Amino acid sequence: MDTFIYNTPTKVYFGRGQENLVGEILAEYGAKKVLIHYGGSSAVKSGLIDKVRGLLEEQGIGYVLLGGVVPNPEIEKVREGIALCRKENVDFILAVGGGSVLDSAKDIANGAANPETDVWDFTLGKARPAGTLPKGAILTLAAAGSEMSDSCVISDRKSGVKRGYGSPYNRMNFAIENPELTYTVDAYQTACGAVDIAMHTIERYFCPGEDTYLTDGIAEAVIRSAMKAGQDAIADPCDYTARANMMWASSLAHNGLTQCGRSCKLVVHQLEHELSAMYPRIAHGAGLAALWCSWARYVYKSSMPRFLQYAHNVWNLDVDFEHPEKTVEKAIGLQEAYYRSIGMPTSLRELGVKPEDLEPLAEKCSRGKTVVLEGYKKLGYEEMLDIYKMAL
Amino acid sequence: MDTFIYNTPTKVYFGRGQENLVGEILAEYGAKKVLIHYGGSSAVKSGLIDKVRGLLEEQGIGYVLLGGVVPNPEIEKVREGIALCRKENVDFILAVGGGSVLDSAKDIANGAANPETDVWDFTLGKARPAGTLPKGAILTLAAAGSEMSDSCVISDRKSGVKRGYGSPYNRMNFAIENPELTYTVDAYQTACGAVDIAMHTIERYFCPGEDTYLTDGIAEAVIRSAMKAGQDAIADPCDYTARANMMWASSLAHNGLTQCGRSCKLVVHQLEHELSAMYPRIAHGAGLAALWCSWARYVYKSSMPRFLQYAHNVWNLDVDFEHPEKTVEKAIGLQEAYYRSIGMPTSLRELGVKPEDLEPLAEKCSRGKTVVLEGYKKLGYEEMLDIYKMAL
Repeated sequence: MDTFIYNTPTKVYFGRGQENLVGEILAEYGAKKVLIHYGGSSAVKSGLIDKVRGLLEEQGIGYVLLGGVVPNPEIEKVREGIALCRKENVDFILAVGGGSVLDSAKDIANGAANPETDVWDFTLGKARPAGTLPKGAILTLAAAGSEMSDSCVISDRKSGVKRGYGSPYNRMNFAIENPELTYTVDAYQTACGAVDIAMHTIERYFCPGEDTYLTDGIAEAVIRSAMKAGQDAIADPCDYTARANMMWASSLAHNGLTQCGRSCKLVVHQLEHELSAMYPRIAHGAGLAALWCSWARYVYKSSMPRFLQYAHNVWNLDVDFEHPEKTVEKAIGLQEAYYRSIGMPTSLRELGVKPEDLEPLAEKCSRGKTVVLEGYKKLGYEEMLDIYKMAL
Repeated sequence: MDTFIYNTPTKVYFGRGQENLVGEILAEYGAKKVLIHYGGSSAVKSGLIDKVRGLLEEQGIGYVLLGGVVPNPEIEKVREGIALCRKENVDFILAVGGGSVLDSAKDIANGAANPETDVWDFTLGKARPAGTLPKGAILTLAAAGSEMSDSCVISDRKSGVKRGYGSPYNRMNFAIENPELTYTVDAYQTACGAVDIAMHTIERYFCPGEDTYLTDGIAEAVIRSAMKAGQDAIADPCDYTARANMMWASSLAHNGLTQCGRSCKLVVHQLEHELSAMYPRIAHGAGLAALWCSWARYVYKSSMPRFLQYAHNVWNLDVDFEHPEKTVEKAIGLQEAYYRSIGMPTSLRELGVKPEDLEPLAEKCSRGKTVVLEGYKKLGYEEMLDIYKMAL
């Protein structure tokens, strides 16, 4: 069990109607001028933005609005937000939306508090935030886990770069999680969310580490719950139990809990980030689903015991000790069948990826053949290309 | 799934040698004068207190020492600590020890920051802290979970009262958890710790609530891990894996994670608190072990499905659908056998409890027949007495 620091300061208000507390909560933080940050028109049409405005007005808290965050949020919108914060003396950022809006809000908060640094340098890893503005979220999509995570993923469409960076300053001060706000999420986005949540945990589960049976048991519970909740929420979008377990799984999958005592390198996420950077229409969850089984088949022989544990504890399979690889392949097949059952792709072809793009993808993911992804099996340019080809 | 607030701000430094960071950590908090609070002589003899003093001196941080906290920590020591804080202008409390020391430190911090209130009123529920001093812990015993919890249990030997109170101000700012510091904990105390950890989770697991399958899966992992780790640590006191999983389980069992979406009434803890208040030599964990199986046998017919889930998911039993009570009784029997296997009592007689004390125990626990404990089955004075009698 490796040494670790566990620090999840985000205060979560979970349950029906909790968004009605947002004015009081912001008043507790002493907010005077809030940037309300959101995505497309659904938060406006649903009346949520108007509700939030009313609640802030009741408390005498000023605000400015900035909508238009897109999936795979972009640095240009972040720059717009930072400029607005400066012009309007914003002292608190409130994100209303899913992971893209929350990540955009984090980057704005970091950029606004570090005026001497070009905010894009945080994403490129050339600089680190030395402070941030306080921030909170009203979550409307259970997927990315940004509401409790220390990570932030930003894209620059011009250069085709999409990357994440971690920082303690990326933690939200609070997150409001009302599962009912996700009732309108359609089946495809719900499926993408279930994949993202399960994959945040599965990826950590397959990071090197040992003797972490408590963390493992928690991770297995999160994986099983996210998959079940996703399936149930697709069958009945207004199933509160499904939406609630899915939303809470989203937060726990990415807040640090499922990696305590293990290393944390999200390998398939790296492979996928290049994919949705090149094809911005590919939803992150769909990209993960299309890649994971190929990655698993490519690497499992380097970590048989771990894959057997996964087969047994996640898929409830009896281990065939004479032919353990059969057990593992059966488990990977079940994962694949699950993805199909919720309408997710299990190949890149289904997502419209062209064969001639595989080499550029591996080139980018390996940063020009200079970076090797660590894990049970090391993945350099050649191995990345093999996996992209298997996944085609 | 009930509405809940999740708030675990304690920053945990987990792993070998993490106590060496304590000077730097306290400097980060700007501490000028620290109260180093500890228990018996073992923290001194082991050299830990001297090490801490040296690390504070290196940072130029002043300190005063207050040892002598006993198991079931007492209000008199708390008052002594508050007086010392005032006299010495203490601005940070550092607890070095197990749950008793940590609880004493919490109460001192609350008392020192609320000079207008009699600190005992917090325990009696007559007043609530409106602030606190910052505080941290170096943990030397994996059991109570006080390092991340919002609770604090204090006794007054004169009046025979032992009670806990919850408050956001009871959260430690940081907790240093080095499993190696628990290598010297003897087999009996290790067993008591394993019971306490498992029971913090089992009690929450058996609180009314529904549709919390994610929380349930996490709780089941904590219960199984705590029991395994306890057994392994008794077999080999210097087994790092066992001590580490046990320590981390201690923190997660009581920080709120295992109750998300469920009510939280620790019924057997209430029954036990009266026991160790009347017999201060009874270790809390031993008292819980002696009581739990009788409580379970008394109430299980009121919550068959929940007990079947426990039998299946914690004890891996196949459910006998024709005779489900047999499955439940088998599971309770396995829990009992586990307690015996680690040297824990499963009856009150083994702890020297006298039959004539059972009525006074039920009298106290029901606050003179006025309080009914909520749960799947309501427990008033008569039911409490029945359970104490069954457990004799």
